[in-house]
Amino acid sequence: MTTLYGYFRSSAAYRVRIVLNLKGLDYEQAPVNLVKGEQRDAAFRGQNPQGLVPMLVTDHGVRLTQSLAICEYLDERHPEPALLPADLEGRARVRALAQLVACEIHPLNNLRVLKHLTGELGLDEAAKLAWYRHWIHEGFTALEAMLNRETGSGDFCHGDSPTLADVCLVPQVYNAERFECNLEAYPRIRRIVANARALEAFRHAAPEAQPDAG
Amino acid sequence: MTTLYGYFRSSAAYRVRIVLNLKGLDYEQAPVNLVKGEQRDAAFRGQNPQGLVPMLVTDHGVRLTQSLAICEYLDERHPEPALLPADLEGRARVRALAQLVACEIHPLNNLRVLKHLTGELGLDEAAKLAWYRHWIHEGFTALEAMLNRETGSGDFCHGDSPTLADVCLVPQVYNAERFECNLEAYPRIRRIVANARALEAFRHAAPEAQPDAG
Repeated sequence: MTTLYGYFRSSAAYRVRIVLNLKGLDYEQAPVNLVKGEQRDAAFRGQNPQGLVPMLVTDHGVRLTQSLAICEYLDERHPEPALLPADLEGRARVRALAQLVACEIHPLNNLRVLKHLTGELGLDEAAKLAWYRHWIHEGFTALEAMLNRETGSGDFCHGDSPTLADVCLVPQVYNAERFECNLEAYPRIRRIVANARALEAFRHAAPEAQPDAG
Repeated sequence: MTTLYGYFRSSAAYRVRIVLNLKGLDYEQAPVNLVKGEQRDAAFRGQNPQGLVPMLVTDHGVRLTQSLAICEYLDERHPEPALLPADLEGRARVRALAQLVACEIHPLNNLRVLKHLTGELGLDEAAKLAWYRHWIHEGFTALEAMLNRETGSGDFCHGDSPTLADVCLVPQVYNAERFECNLEAYPRIRRIVANARALEAFRHAAPEAQPDAG
């Protein structure tokens, strides 16, 4: 059985849940409570020295880390439905949109960074929120422009079915909503996310639908 | 002709230069001076709304962004020498090692974030350096453990020839050295980087070898 070590609110674990659902794969969940710091416990670090979720233990017993690497593994092992288009330029575009979220927005706004800002750097809640919203605004402004300008966009980030880009975008928008970011300026992003949320694979992957949801 | 929009000290552009060299591809460089803020100019933003380097314009005239997406595009278009192993678990491992650098270390330590810390947040130089070194230490501690524990490691991050993981690691180590991080605790990382630096493809991609080096 495939096991996903994750946390209901982790955007990165949320990405993997969406892919597991899109591929129609059975899996069990092993919740790691990030707020309680369980990801830093020796038991978990012994398995994943990064101390991060998600970690996927495959049905072959292999431990995989880093959400995008896990998503691409699942896509290569279970090719249908495809998370990447067939043409090389299309694949590069989808990966770039995914990485705009995964390398430019999410790393600056995840829990360990926000904790570092309010802990070591002594920022107050208002300054932390301003930081969070700044990187959402920077990233979503770029993403909205790319989605509007580039010919590949459709009902989803690329074409009319979900790809790796939507798999990253939906959890990031969920997170932005949780931090009460104003998303008025991003109608294309909101329309795509609404289309994705209409699909069962995305709905069942949502934080509030997870067994460890508080 | 393939054109790389980059900056000699950009770690992300450095990754793409290594791959272009490993693949033996000719390309021309279009320097974008990040310190002068040229990446935010309307002329560049018109081509890449992210306002980030690298951007690769292919010989077909297609604009590609996000360094890992560009590297995988080049690997798919020019399969030899391969940047990813053939087996699915090995591919996932290499991508995870690459993303540990590209999603957990680099995004927190790049120029725009450091400028935000000293600008908007008013941090002094010492606090900025402490921030930089904190994320290097977090990331390299995890990476060193993975390289030592996991059976895939060899003279390089995965096996005995360079992969996408080394393509990300070498620029990150260059950057850490520039910020005078103490790397004593990471002998495995240092050994791998020394092996990579012995190769012409890596040497010719180094910041000091670029036409826009100051």
